[in-house]
Amino acid sequence: MAFNNQLLFKQILAKRSYLCVGLDSDISRIPKHLLTLEDPIFEFNKAIIDATKDLCVAYKPNIAFYESLGASGWESLRKTLEYIPDDIFTIADAKRGDIGNTSLQYAKTFFETYEFDSVTIAPYMGEDSVKPFLSFEGKYVILLGLTSNKGSDDFQHFCDISGKKLHELVLERAQEWSDPDQLMFVIGATHPEAFEKIRSIAPHNFFLVPGVGAQGGTIEDVSRYGLNKEVGLLVNSSRGIIFASSGEDFASVAREKAKELQSQMEKVLIEREYL
Amino acid sequence: MAFNNQLLFKQILAKRSYLCVGLDSDISRIPKHLLTLEDPIFEFNKAIIDATKDLCVAYKPNIAFYESLGASGWESLRKTLEYIPDDIFTIADAKRGDIGNTSLQYAKTFFETYEFDSVTIAPYMGEDSVKPFLSFEGKYVILLGLTSNKGSDDFQHFCDISGKKLHELVLERAQEWSDPDQLMFVIGATHPEAFEKIRSIAPHNFFLVPGVGAQGGTIEDVSRYGLNKEVGLLVNSSRGIIFASSGEDFASVAREKAKELQSQMEKVLIEREYL
Repeated sequence: MAFNNQLLFKQILAKRSYLCVGLDSDISRIPKHLLTLEDPIFEFNKAIIDATKDLCVAYKPNIAFYESLGASGWESLRKTLEYIPDDIFTIADAKRGDIGNTSLQYAKTFFETYEFDSVTIAPYMGEDSVKPFLSFEGKYVILLGLTSNKGSDDFQHFCDISGKKLHELVLERAQEWSDPDQLMFVIGATHPEAFEKIRSIAPHNFFLVPGVGAQGGTIEDVSRYGLNKEVGLLVNSSRGIIFASSGEDFASVAREKAKELQSQMEKVLIEREYL
Repeated sequence: MAFNNQLLFKQILAKRSYLCVGLDSDISRIPKHLLTLEDPIFEFNKAIIDATKDLCVAYKPNIAFYESLGASGWESLRKTLEYIPDDIFTIADAKRGDIGNTSLQYAKTFFETYEFDSVTIAPYMGEDSVKPFLSFEGKYVILLGLTSNKGSDDFQHFCDISGKKLHELVLERAQEWSDPDQLMFVIGATHPEAFEKIRSIAPHNFFLVPGVGAQGGTIEDVSRYGLNKEVGLLVNSSRGIIFASSGEDFASVAREKAKELQSQMEKVLIEREYL
């Protein structure tokens, strides 16, 4: 289906969850008993999806883990994407971005060859590297704003004479290119102190929030200043869910971990009177 | 072979050329008579390589044009890479970059699954997004510095209180992560006025220079301030060579266009007394 913010908000209320499950399905980390199957990566994802699809509103395959396997990885990705229920938002975590005619090719990859609802994009090359992705109706660009990793300090906090930081400029400028129904930002959970300012700069955009769990962020912290009137958050957990067990019980343990996060989100949604 | 700057310099002198041919092999633009063949993209690349391999020191497939075709595009890429002579430097123009464990997967894609000599990387996510690529001996990271597109003005010229620009900070900081035998920068030919300053910041690194031809830059302009003692430039042309003719003579016309650029480079190499 073609998503917009209102539709995402409805899904969040229906599932009492703003969880995104990251399918960083590293072949070297999936349970050993799957490796004898014809397509271990797809079988792993299928089991994870079956175990979590009522608890999350989005799935985010990290393209690196598919691409690194060559053609077979892309085939696993295609089957995974087809298996995800149509009412769950899909994110190609690809962090692409190039000059115009090349970005258009990347957009075709993730919006036509593979029918994702959205793709993550790096902003360094500016407007004409992002615009081609915005020419696809009903599809979202998720632009890197303030990322969750340590290296986010290197350039994203670079500051002009007025005190404006690079990631703040990215948030401001990108809003001139699109409206919130086609544009989200990646804002890492590891910077809870920055959420208030960032939300004031981009009040109506959804934020894709990595960094909860393994990287140290919490649902409570990011929700405190991150929520807007349509919730406006998709909080991602990848390894903390999908690799919580490496045994035959991996799917049921993944469900438990997803359920823990969903319960925390439900609590927030009730406290903040969305439900 | 495992390249280093000295080896690249030797190739440049031997071929009297610092030309990189960009294999942006867009299926919608390759000559129609190839489309009936089993693998049109590979057949196109093969003919271009045969026609230009004595005139250039590097080939740069732009990954977007392969990836957008799904699994078959990756297969065309693999065959192309195998066909490129071993003494010609190969660049995966992929503009990747992600958190550490993900960047490592991307590095495996382009350095192991496909055996490129180098890959282009976007710097936005900082040190830990770049470092995994540097852990592969004999392989280069080519980091975006100042790109050739119009959007390079949006963020790359963002300026701190001392007047330092974002792309200058990227050039400075990245040199702390690696030595010039593993690190190049993308510097667009459309900014000839910036080359003198950029060369002073990164005196020993090779620059991959897009933007000559279709985008308006010239060999003369970029060579004026861009050369260093090992030449230090790989000047790329893609569409201006490979799509110069869309007829059955595409390969011979591509050769003519490559030869024109190589002759200009030879003239510069003689004038500047490298030859």
